[in-house]
Amino acid sequence: MKRFLNLVITRQSVRRYKPDPVDPEQLKRCLEAARLSPSASNSQPWTFIVVNEPTLREKVARETFSTILSFNKFVLQAPALVVFVIEKPKLITRIGANIKNKEYPLIDIGIAAEHFCLQAAEEGLGTCMLGWFNEKPIKSMLNIPAKKTIGLIITLGHPAEGYRLRKKSRKDFDEVVRFNSY
Amino acid sequence: MKRFLNLVITRQSVRRYKPDPVDPEQLKRCLEAARLSPSASNSQPWTFIVVNEPTLREKVARETFSTILSFNKFVLQAPALVVFVIEKPKLITRIGANIKNKEYPLIDIGIAAEHFCLQAAEEGLGTCMLGWFNEKPIKSMLNIPAKKTIGLIITLGHPAEGYRLRKKSRKDFDEVVRFNSY
Repeated sequence: MKRFLNLVITRQSVRRYKPDPVDPEQLKRCLEAARLSPSASNSQPWTFIVVNEPTLREKVARETFSTILSFNKFVLQAPALVVFVIEKPKLITRIGANIKNKEYPLIDIGIAAEHFCLQAAEEGLGTCMLGWFNEKPIKSMLNIPAKKTIGLIITLGHPAEGYRLRKKSRKDFDEVVRFNSY
Repeated sequence: MKRFLNLVITRQSVRRYKPDPVDPEQLKRCLEAARLSPSASNSQPWTFIVVNEPTLREKVARETFSTILSFNKFVLQAPALVVFVIEKPKLITRIGANIKNKEYPLIDIGIAAEHFCLQAAEEGLGTCMLGWFNEKPIKSMLNIPAKKTIGLIITLGHPAEGYRLRKKSRKDFDEVVRFNSY
């Protein structure tokens, strides 16, 4: 009963990649895992844009790091990026969200993105979720309608030679788990 | 390379439960899968409250369905509920979120909740994520500070006898996946 837990431990943010392209069948299974994700009222409020055309990919990659702070430069190495666009959920979900003041599509996008990354981990591929990017230029480069929102971007590729599995640094179990009272 | 995909297909919302309690070791592994989830800047913005004390559980369950619309009444059958409380992320994440106008903790909570549900599916247990609930009374019942937010609640239990795996209804691959342009 620990197969999934082991996969969770294997999945990590990968920040160095080989230039080798990703096998289309492997990419397809990652996208399939995301497509089959659950979502509030089964709204599936997402579109996944794979960016693997080299010139375009580099242009998009350059909008995911700050030239001043210069973090995330590794994004340039990834042979593919996947842009998770948030779509409007169903009317019933929107009404519920309004009444209860919940942003369900963000929860849904998180689930779909993690499905993608977990399948990639099973394939021996590396991913990193990016929440920091310049949304406007990327939307323009990819012809995403101005009123839509990008939830996050995922890098995908083969981890660089010698890339090691790190030990996860997490809060202790007793710090995050409670029983019957906060 | 389809083990994870098969788990994704096995996981479904379960809306009928046996009254049998959940084995503590199984519950622990589900919580562990959630605890080990990735989050923006590794903020881990969550507290998981297991509600399995029968009287309290029933009181909480009654706040997750509308007595007028009477959906979600099945929640009363689940031997355990897990309440996902959103905690404040790290300062660096909050600054980034402000600049980029992104609500990362909701994405993070979605990921952690799905880790919980996937591990439960591996254990042969059933779950259902609930996004619709009366937040204020539940916070009061569980001593959750007023300024905190509940992201979602998950039901957990053994699926009722004869509960079948349903075929997933999802948008077609070509409808949700694009290459290099929206």
